[in-house]
Amino acid sequence: MCAAAAEFDEVGYAGASLSSIAARLGRTKGAMSYHFSSKASLAREVVVTQYRQWEVVLERLRDDGHSGLDATVMLSFIVAGRFRDDVLVRAGIRLQHDAGLHDGDLPTPFLGWMRIVGTLLTESEPPVALPPGLDAQSAAEVLVEAFTGLQQVAHRLSRARDIDARVEHYWLLVLPAFGVEDAQHRVERLRAASAAY
Amino acid sequence: MCAAAAEFDEVGYAGASLSSIAARLGRTKGAMSYHFSSKASLAREVVVTQYRQWEVVLERLRDDGHSGLDATVMLSFIVAGRFRDDVLVRAGIRLQHDAGLHDGDLPTPFLGWMRIVGTLLTESEPPVALPPGLDAQSAAEVLVEAFTGLQQVAHRLSRARDIDARVEHYWLLVLPAFGVEDAQHRVERLRAASAAY
Repeated sequence: MCAAAAEFDEVGYAGASLSSIAARLGRTKGAMSYHFSSKASLAREVVVTQYRQWEVVLERLRDDGHSGLDATVMLSFIVAGRFRDDVLVRAGIRLQHDAGLHDGDLPTPFLGWMRIVGTLLTESEPPVALPPGLDAQSAAEVLVEAFTGLQQVAHRLSRARDIDARVEHYWLLVLPAFGVEDAQHRVERLRAASAAY
Repeated sequence: MCAAAAEFDEVGYAGASLSSIAARLGRTKGAMSYHFSSKASLAREVVVTQYRQWEVVLERLRDDGHSGLDATVMLSFIVAGRFRDDVLVRAGIRLQHDAGLHDGDLPTPFLGWMRIVGTLLTESEPPVALPPGLDAQSAAEVLVEAFTGLQQVAHRLSRARDIDARVEHYWLLVLPAFGVEDAQHRVERLRAASAAY
């Protein structure tokens, strides 16, 4: 799985091949095809595995009693850190954005995250103050769009080494719309708290 | 140029080929190679042509005396509209994000836009109120990242048909950080004004 993730991460879906993934493992393509019949099925496996871990993180955030907005901020730092450090997460996220991979068997990207963030904002206790003109779902969509671009830019410009600072700036620009007065202090605190996850 | 743009837009850089671009024009690959020696040089031409038009738009926005923040909002609606309607713009932007196209001859994506938006925010008259903790350049970076993700999501989910609404929501979430009180009214007005460009 990690060999496939590394291959997809480095050369993208279109550039990846079963034989070079096999070569990373010191095996022949024939031996590997026994387990994975196609590049598409390997890609699917990487994407689905990447998704599963977020359910665990979300459950912990809920159990620890964070408000919906705080949980969203923490989640963004957690995802950013793994995107930077974990090739499986990076490959999973980038594969989903890859224009060449429209085989219908993968979940449509973005929608799952929009649902998750929308639910966090809707069910938050205490309730989240929404910006005038936006409901929780529209706000969640913008947050996911912006975070998607942030990941892409960070990856392209610094291989995501500076992603934490970018996430911090993103929240400084966005939190005032949710009525947060001392955004700097709040972001500092949540960034530190997210390190435990 | 438009045949190449249409090809890149539909199948991405990796999927495009000189022969299918030639086929779109009803010509042979040989006849076309006389003008363009490679897929990379065609891609470069699409990207550079796409860039050039923004200088004209920026100059008009400056001449018309809009403040830096207003010009940034209007520019986003103008870019979004052309991204939706103009295959050359769409191909130019998407090619730059395409992971397969790292041939060094293209300008690094995002940086040009970050400079443009940073300058608009810095030189704005009246001056822009920046969110606490962010300077004009960091704010410009987040704005460009968020807009990049917005384009990508809009393209993936609706072929950008709903991009105007997404740009509107994006500004409703971001303008409060710049001290704008009646964001809804301001966005409506600037969206309408941008239609003339």
